Amino acid sequence: MDVPNRFRIETLDDATWILTCAFIIFTMQSGFGLLESGSVTVKNEVNIMMKNAVDVMFGGLTFWMVGYGLGFGDEPGANPFCGWGDFFVHANSSELGWTYSKFFFQSSFATTATTIVSGSMAERTRLDAYIVFSMLNTFIFCIPAHWVWAPGGWLYEMGVIDIAGAGPVHLVGGVTGLVATLMLKPRHGRFTTDKNEQPAMGSPTNAILGMFMLWWGWLGFNCGSTFGISGLKWKLAARSAVTTTLASVAGGIVGTMTSYIFKQRRFDVGYTINGILGSLVGITASCALAKPWEALVIGVCSSLITNGVCELLSKLKIDDPVGCVGTHAASGMFSLLASGFLTEKDELTDAMQLDRIRPGLVYSGDFRQLGIQALAVVSICGWTVVTSVVFLKLIQVTVGLRVSLEEEIIGADIVEHAIGGVFYNKKTRMIESEQASKEEPDIIRHYDQPIATMHRRQSHVYGRRFSTQSGSCKDSLHYQLPVSLSDEVDVSEKNSPLTLLKNIMNWCKTRKNPVLFSPKDYVTPNLPISHDNEIYDLQGNLPYPSIPSCKYVEETNRDNITVTYV
Amino acid sequence: MDVPNRFRIETLDDATWILTCAFIIFTMQSGFGLLESGSVTVKNEVNIMMKNAVDVMFGGLTFWMVGYGLGFGDEPGANPFCGWGDFFVHANSSELGWTYSKFFFQSSFATTATTIVSGSMAERTRLDAYIVFSMLNTFIFCIPAHWVWAPGGWLYEMGVIDIAGAGPVHLVGGVTGLVATLMLKPRHGRFTTDKNEQPAMGSPTNAILGMFMLWWGWLGFNCGSTFGISGLKWKLAARSAVTTTLASVAGGIVGTMTSYIFKQRRFDVGYTINGILGSLVGITASCALAKPWEALVIGVCSSLITNGVCELLSKLKIDDPVGCVGTHAASGMFSLLASGFLTEKDELTDAMQLDRIRPGLVYSGDFRQLGIQALAVVSICGWTVVTSVVFLKLIQVTVGLRVSLEEEIIGADIVEHAIGGVFYNKKTRMIESEQASKEEPDIIRHYDQPIATMHRRQSHVYGRRFSTQSGSCKDSLHYQLPVSLSDEVDVSEKNSPLTLLKNIMNWCKTRKNPVLFSPKDYVTPNLPISHDNEIYDLQGNLPYPSIPSCKYVEETNRDNITVTYV
Amino acid sequence: MDVPNRFRIETLDDATWILTCAFIIFTMQSGFGLLESGSVTVKNEVNIMMKNAVDVMFGGLTFWMVGYGLGFGDEPGANPFCGWGDFFVHANSSELGWTYSKFFFQSSFATTATTIVSGSMAERTRLDAYIVFSMLNTFIFCIPAHWVWAPGGWLYEMGVIDIAGAGPVHLVGGVTGLVATLMLKPRHGRFTTDKNEQPAMGSPTNAILGMFMLWWGWLGFNCGSTFGISGLKWKLAARSAVTTTLASVAGGIVGTMTSYIFKQRRFDVGYTINGILGSLVGITASCALAKPWEALVIGVCSSLITNGVCELLSKLKIDDPVGCVGTHAASGMFSLLASGFLTEKDELTDAMQLDRIRPGLVYSGDFRQLGIQALAVVSICGWTVVTSVVFLKLIQVTVGLRVSLEEEIIGADIVEHAIGGVFYNKKTRMIESEQASKEEPDIIRHYDQPIATMHRRQSHVYGRRFSTQSGSCKDSLHYQLPVSLSDEVDVSEKNSPLTLLKNIMNWCKTRKNPVLFSPKDYVTPNLPISHDNEIYDLQGNLPYPSIPSCKYVEETNRDNITVTYV
Repeated sequence: MDVPNRFRIETLDDATWILTCAFIIFTMQSGFGLLESGSVTVKNEVNIMMKNAVDVMFGGLTFWMVGYGLGFGDEPGANPFCGWGDFFVHANSSELGWTYSKFFFQSSFATTATTIVSGSMAERTRLDAYIVFSMLNTFIFCIPAHWVWAPGGWLYEMGVIDIAGAGPVHLVGGVTGLVATLMLKPRHGRFTTDKNEQPAMGSPTNAILGMFMLWWGWLGFNCGSTFGISGLKWKLAARSAVTTTLASVAGGIVGTMTSYIFKQRRFDVGYTINGILGSLVGITASCALAKPWEALVIGVCSSLITNGVCELLSKLKIDDPVGCVGTHAASGMFSLLASGFLTEKDELTDAMQLDRIRPGLVYSGDFRQLGIQALAVVSICGWTVVTSVVFLKLIQVTVGLRVSLEEEIIGADIVEHAIGGVFYNKKTRMIESEQASKEEPDIIRHYDQPIATMHRRQSHVYGRRFSTQSGSCKDSLHYQLPVSLSDEVDVSEKNSPLTLLKNIMNWCKTRKNPVLFSPKDYVTPNLPISHDNEIYDLQGNLPYPSIPSCKYVEETNRDNITVTYV
Repeated sequence: MDVPNRFRIETLDDATWILTCAFIIFTMQSGFGLLESGSVTVKNEVNIMMKNAVDVMFGGLTFWMVGYGLGFGDEPGANPFCGWGDFFVHANSSELGWTYSKFFFQSSFATTATTIVSGSMAERTRLDAYIVFSMLNTFIFCIPAHWVWAPGGWLYEMGVIDIAGAGPVHLVGGVTGLVATLMLKPRHGRFTTDKNEQPAMGSPTNAILGMFMLWWGWLGFNCGSTFGISGLKWKLAARSAVTTTLASVAGGIVGTMTSYIFKQRRFDVGYTINGILGSLVGITASCALAKPWEALVIGVCSSLITNGVCELLSKLKIDDPVGCVGTHAASGMFSLLASGFLTEKDELTDAMQLDRIRPGLVYSGDFRQLGIQALAVVSICGWTVVTSVVFLKLIQVTVGLRVSLEEEIIGADIVEHAIGGVFYNKKTRMIESEQASKEEPDIIRHYDQPIATMHRRQSHVYGRRFSTQSGSCKDSLHYQLPVSLSDEVDVSEKNSPLTLLKNIMNWCKTRKNPVLFSPKDYVTPNLPISHDNEIYDLQGNLPYPSIPSCKYVEETNRDNITVTYV
Repeated sequence: MDVPNRFRIETLDDATWILTCAFIIFTMQSGFGLLESGSVTVKNEVNIMMKNAVDVMFGGLTFWMVGYGLGFGDEPGANPFCGWGDFFVHANSSELGWTYSKFFFQSSFATTATTIVSGSMAERTRLDAYIVFSMLNTFIFCIPAHWVWAPGGWLYEMGVIDIAGAGPVHLVGGVTGLVATLMLKPRHGRFTTDKNEQPAMGSPTNAILGMFMLWWGWLGFNCGSTFGISGLKWKLAARSAVTTTLASVAGGIVGTMTSYIFKQRRFDVGYTINGILGSLVGITASCALAKPWEALVIGVCSSLITNGVCELLSKLKIDDPVGCVGTHAASGMFSLLASGFLTEKDELTDAMQLDRIRPGLVYSGDFRQLGIQALAVVSICGWTVVTSVVFLKLIQVTVGLRVSLEEEIIGADIVEHAIGGVFYNKKTRMIESEQASKEEPDIIRHYDQPIATMHRRQSHVYGRRFSTQSGSCKDSLHYQLPVSLSDEVDVSEKNSPLTLLKNIMNWCKTRKNPVLFSPKDYVTPNLPISHDNEIYDLQGNLPYPSIPSCKYVEETNRDNITVTYV
């Protein structure tokens, strides 16, 4: 099949342009990583960075194996629904220049589609499940990519407008994210307070840095999607740079002002980030075609849509930890539709052989292009919902999707990655340290100062500082898990705090690992002042006087009991 | 008007070169963000990242609206003082390639000029005021940009040498920063100690990472300022890369050695950073013209000037939180002047139609070029001082420039952005939590572990850990503001610590929000050992025995009282 | 000498391609910085960022002065062993385009070779020694660079395959790192526990971000090493992009799986990082030549080799803090050898005038190319070992290589950089604060909240929170060094904890700086419960009742005594 100009890499300038853009796009992977890991709670910060590396590795492998072939293969067997051929991508020396450039460029798109989903699945998805998912997601992405971008793809042949992937990348990623979050259910405790506020960002600075990386990566994304600079294509690249910037400028301003107006004159970081990213998604479909003022309008609308959908999901008690549904699904949908309203043809559209497209509704009063765009939205959503439900269900019943409650509360950094040398022993349900010696398990050795690092990590996890003891009496350090006590201990409200404490200590004695509170760790209930300040040690001796440095904090909802050492 | 070769984008290679360089320049925005946020105290870390995003958004909008037109518009009405036309930048398909590339490239310069100022205004400027300022600053930048870079600009026509913006970007940014910091006055407590040391950097690692980003972005800045690669311009780009690197190498070495020699063999991070950035500014004016050894000389001088001016400002009790005046104003000035000393003409200067320039003083004994450079310095400084004073005064009397003392001490992260879900209620002057429920205001729910995050943030703000209590007695968590007590409480030295404590507790009782210290939070004065260790609760019961876990720390200067809970 | 096509920069496209790639490579410096600083303990985090800046500055200077000349100078005097000429790189206007582009590109390689070593030397090397080393390392790098890359270099003439520097960059860097770590000896306490685990990463998030930066920088590294895009070279660049990506994909997957299998289903961050980086090193020699499946094979092997060597070194009690030997030396060696097995010639190899190379063993059964590659490994290793031993010995006997034990335990951030305004006074062996006033030395003024920052830093260093006191009794804040007590105090096990405490306090009294424990800081031994809870103050008054907020923690190995204030 004759490749139309739109996707033909004509000269070495074209090839190196998309290579350079792909280098820049690759920085988006770290951008997503930082944005997501900065947005979630600190106990999952490392885990989500790892997920963004996993995307590239496992998703990259399957994209090389079958994804590129199903998306862009043009051997016999390719049809309007999917491509065929070019599996396990390789090429001889006369072909490899174009093929490898295109494959490298497209693989950066494929991994982005997956990484979008990781945000929705944050803080409660098993990493092994996510690895399997990132391999399968290639398939969810590459079919719509064929529809929209491959010569012969049915939407392409109808003249759909989607320059840089509002459909195959953002809509696919966002809708998959919505399906995933609905299947996973909200994070533990997400909707127990009245305000339904997201938990505070773990590291807003990292989140903003990630946003900046995405911003600059997006320039490569949109400008590179001209597939070259030869002929008149370089003008489209220049136009993409300007429209991308202006849309994000408008979206950022609106996001910032939205927060200012509705949040009592505060500048919520999330609103600005979502405003910018939402408008970048919004301009994606028509980046090389829009006029500057159109870009501004698209940016304004996308920003409102993104932040609106994020609020709406929160009201509906759908837990989308980093706002991926609002940003990518909603604004991706809007992006495709906006192209049906606003596009005009000019001599540059021919430069990309975009002659099939029709002028938008605003300019022509003609609904046809809008209809095609709507058809793209519906069909891509349909495809994505069906395939992602099938794949995620498959993973759910085999590997399992969601971590246990205990693991969720501890956080994936310790459970999956043993960050800080601390790991979770699934058998004993205790948190232990790698640095402990074999003879004296569970003692943290004060090797130089990793204790400080652990300190920091620990305090993230438990909301308390752990106390260490060693020396002549060989006390051990033990971590008390702040969970699941309520399953085993009678913590009902009818009990006095004193009874509660006794119940807990009795429960402790039944644990395999015998010493939960070492002799010098105490628990004192938060008694009314008129009560005696009775304190028990584990041996049950009481009262033990004057050790007020530990206190017992009981959650009001009673399913989460934490012992805080001050 | 015929555009001279210097600024003519001749080929698509030229256009894509400056697009690529502009992508790289865009990373400088995050570089400035990290450098500044890493350099200030942690309580303003997020706020200054946001300011760097605001620059792009609000400054980008006004640059599109009027800035580009006043700087580079070449329609009738353009004159030696300012350009005219091309407002609300748009272009038809035959023009848009050059126009959009140039606009995109120049807008990255415009936002940089603004972002420089954000450093000087750090830690005490209202964000809404800064937003207005970033819109107005476009105007301060674009007029000198016209003088220096636009064909027809009066300095350009005189043959001023300023390849990459030592004048319009750095001198303008630095001088505006100086004006701003003089109007804002120093940060609270900045010059109360004898040594006048800057407060410790909040995150030196982030600051160094930011410096690296600026370093690589500067390569795009200087190499892209050839405005292309066609003809002989690519040689100028290669020369810019080498001179930029060598100047920074020399500047960094001198900065590092300066610290080593004058700071008792310590390697101060700030000296190295300022040395590198100062020398990068220093080479900006002549980057495409200098010889390697000239770049080294310029780097050495700029580094000394930058660190010297920073020390001088500190002695003069002018508070420049991240050294923007020394780096950008002083070295920008030096950069312009150095070009008058060192420039030689060769066949490459013609490649940029730099035929108007004259050989520098060192090579020709001719003072003319130096005179023109000096004129540029004087005129740009004059323009900048006048306009920035007018604009900042205007903002001061309308929006207000500086935050209240209370807000400054709490920090902009909480006051402006409610970081960690904690916000400052201006009415009650209390710090409250978003996650609190409506029935039990001010209780932090221990939802998973955001408490740990808050912990971290809190400790930044108050220099203390907050203590939380809940459970059956429904105690509330309250934060005591560590400020303004001295306005309302008699804390004079004649009082004994005990009296002081009583005064504070009496003051607490008069506050609207009644429970400042919950029944189990205590305050114990740091009494001489011979005193009784009397402790009061809020109900005034005394003595309350054996709760030594809280103590009272009083500042010696007595205008800042902090209660520390250990 | 006629420069062969391989290294000839033919067109301005070639020149700007390698400039652009060099910009991207420059980001690797920050990548290494973040990876290393995130991998080491927090007390050296800033120091290692500084070392990566020092590389560029001091290494860049000597590379400009002599390195480029010895590596790539082609004036009379150049010979198979080293180049000659082009010292203090400069060029006239007709030459400078090619010369400066090449110099700029090569200098990014030279500084990378040095920065690799900084990982091996982490946490115990004096910064002034490292500065001298980074100047000398240019010489270690540039000779093998001449052998392999310069027309006339003896390995080049034999037809060695090393496209992007597996030998001169990675093997040289890795072997120098091995020599350095052997000469420095392991970090204090590194091999005292049974498991020989690395201390926990200080900031895994930063380490992963650094890995991402290296990943994207490597694309510039490998794709730029085609030395252009004219002719057929652009195809080699495209091939490099694909093979680099696929090798890292395979290596990352294998690294991740290795951890999953051998580490009880945990995903160790270090394994994944080493897998990715090791495979990136592995593909370096043949990046422009390999087929996709060959890249996968190379990635798999490199990943196994890298992680295997890291484990082996740990078993051999060789301390390589960030795995530089496994990643760069072992995989660099493998990379060179793999090229002898797997390379095939095709029409593209001629594009780089790689006509001297022979088909690899697998394709031809011919051992010759493998022999040449092995010769390269042996000769580069030999050269590197000899020169690095000489240089490092030289530094050791003059400047000194390793910091004192006291300084090592405190950490370079405070000792070298006075991070947080806290510095180490070598005379008094006390840690002091810059912000202290002259009249009352050692009191930390609570200027706004730098105390919080110090807090954080302090706790990293001492594993304890420091306590501050001021006010009417003018107590001073002092830091007790957690080291070297055992040299001066009898801490043998026969003593009771009480005696131990007395010994410590007696020792304190003999110190120059008299007040080590201020009157309200107490030390209480961790006595068995049956003992009286006796507490002494410095004046020797005892018992002092009911101040349990401090306790004494003694290390079991007894060479590290820490007093923890809770």
